[in-house]
Amino acid sequence: MPVQTSLETLTLDEALQMISAARKKAEDLKVPSNIAVVDAGGNLLAFERMNGAWLGSIQIAQDKAYTARAFDMSTKELAKLSGPDGPLFGIHTQPNIVIFAGGIPVKRGDQVVGAIGSSGGTVDQDQKIAEAGVHGLR
Amino acid sequence: MPVQTSLETLTLDEALQMISAARKKAEDLKVPSNIAVVDAGGNLLAFERMNGAWLGSIQIAQDKAYTARAFDMSTKELAKLSGPDGPLFGIHTQPNIVIFAGGIPVKRGDQVVGAIGSSGGTVDQDQKIAEAGVHGLR
Amino acid sequence: MPVQTSLETLTLDEALQMISAARKKAEDLKVPSNIAVVDAGGNLLAFERMNGAWLGSIQIAQDKAYTARAFDMSTKELAKLSGPDGPLFGIHTQPNIVIFAGGIPVKRGDQVVGAIGSSGGTVDQDQKIAEAGVHGLR
Amino acid sequence: MPVQTSLETLTLDEALQMISAARKKAEDLKVPSNIAVVDAGGNLLAFERMNGAWLGSIQIAQDKAYTARAFDMSTKELAKLSGPDGPLFGIHTQPNIVIFAGGIPVKRGDQVVGAIGSSGGTVDQDQKIAEAGVHGLR
Repeated sequence: MPVQTSLETLTLDEALQMISAARKKAEDLKVPSNIAVVDAGGNLLAFERMNGAWLGSIQIAQDKAYTARAFDMSTKELAKLSGPDGPLFGIHTQPNIVIFAGGIPVKRGDQVVGAIGSSGGTVDQDQKIAEAGVHGLR
Repeated sequence: MPVQTSLETLTLDEALQMISAARKKAEDLKVPSNIAVVDAGGNLLAFERMNGAWLGSIQIAQDKAYTARAFDMSTKELAKLSGPDGPLFGIHTQPNIVIFAGGIPVKRGDQVVGAIGSSGGTVDQDQKIAEAGVHGLR
Repeated sequence: MPVQTSLETLTLDEALQMISAARKKAEDLKVPSNIAVVDAGGNLLAFERMNGAWLGSIQIAQDKAYTARAFDMSTKELAKLSGPDGPLFGIHTQPNIVIFAGGIPVKRGDQVVGAIGSSGGTVDQDQKIAEAGVHGLR
Repeated sequence: MPVQTSLETLTLDEALQMISAARKKAEDLKVPSNIAVVDAGGNLLAFERMNGAWLGSIQIAQDKAYTARAFDMSTKELAKLSGPDGPLFGIHTQPNIVIFAGGIPVKRGDQVVGAIGSSGGTVDQDQKIAEAGVHGLR
């Protein structure tokens, strides 16, 4: 494995592009959402809570983004591994790890450079909103 | 979605009306209970522990009220979504989120203005006591 | 030392009497306050947040009551011992221990049966409000 | 004291206006900053971390905003009250309470509707950046 001497990472501008696109999707779906983006280090870059979004999802949106970067897979994929019969059953009791769909890692080339998390609707809606965020990255 | 520049919220007097009605129900059921009310911001407004109520339920009653406001649904509904096959499986590992029945949001018009949480009996009893609290609001 | 086989303790009714008297004093002083009462075990019995009281004082009021019972002295006395030159310097870094005036233990005979804590004004105001609460005990 | 049945609060758009103005000031001062805005309930509305801003300040910026709302005063004012001889000495050991300048409450009329917090530079710089944010509110 080659040694990495740098972390490719999202910038704040990119994070805001993503949140803007995700928010537009959330407005289309009429789902007030909390949307967060973390960088390659898993640390919060930007966050927005839409009018009327659940208070309980403020932390969850951030945790979804963190989780997606922490395991370099979407929280939707992670959820599949975390059921009672899955190999990762119980992982959600780790601090800041959540297993609800709506957290997606973002790649540049083959490196994960950060992640987005959305929370406020059903997990299907959250997933769509997060996907819109990833696609909003120019 | 219309932008809210103010949050309708419960007052202390309303919180005390609710706790009084809930406590009366708890006395009828002979269930020593912890009863809490939070405002629209999810912050504690009032709390009472009846004689003999479980110490372990002091925090749970508060968490039920917070959870009901945090997701604008009763903890009973949330519980249904949080089983091993539910879309919100694992949500109870978030700080201050509980999935035991007995937490109910309170509305004024179509806005959630706070919530009540009761803990100390079975979840069915807790639910009935919290419901009595909501109905006690004049 | 005689062995205690019972804890003399405040009841919920007594806690509500105290909070009611303290709240009246706070209204007279025009200081929106958070007021808490703990029992002989140091556990929360009752709490009220007046309209407009500081959010940051919700926990502090509870901590004042707990601290006053935890050391069986007023937080005002404890504060004197906790300055940079005092024997208890640094005690406030213990969980739930605060050294602001406004927490007062309550006695029945020579036993501490609980405590009241008030927070929301200056420490002098908080102290007066807590004192009014103690005097309100019938 | 009049009873409030609603809390005037910042909107997300207002929060973003404030962060945008604060960020511009931070760029002028060449201070990579973390900037957060909370609503009337003390809950996070929006957050941005500028390129190169301290990771350790992600939470501090949020705590500054929360603290300014929790006590309806700037963290700079609170700091003055929190010295070894001040009436609030030790308050910084409460969860999420910080006493570094850079947190400022925001008013609409005479009601506090939220707060901004900035962290990443000296406390003087953080204060200037937060002030610029407040002035950026249209």
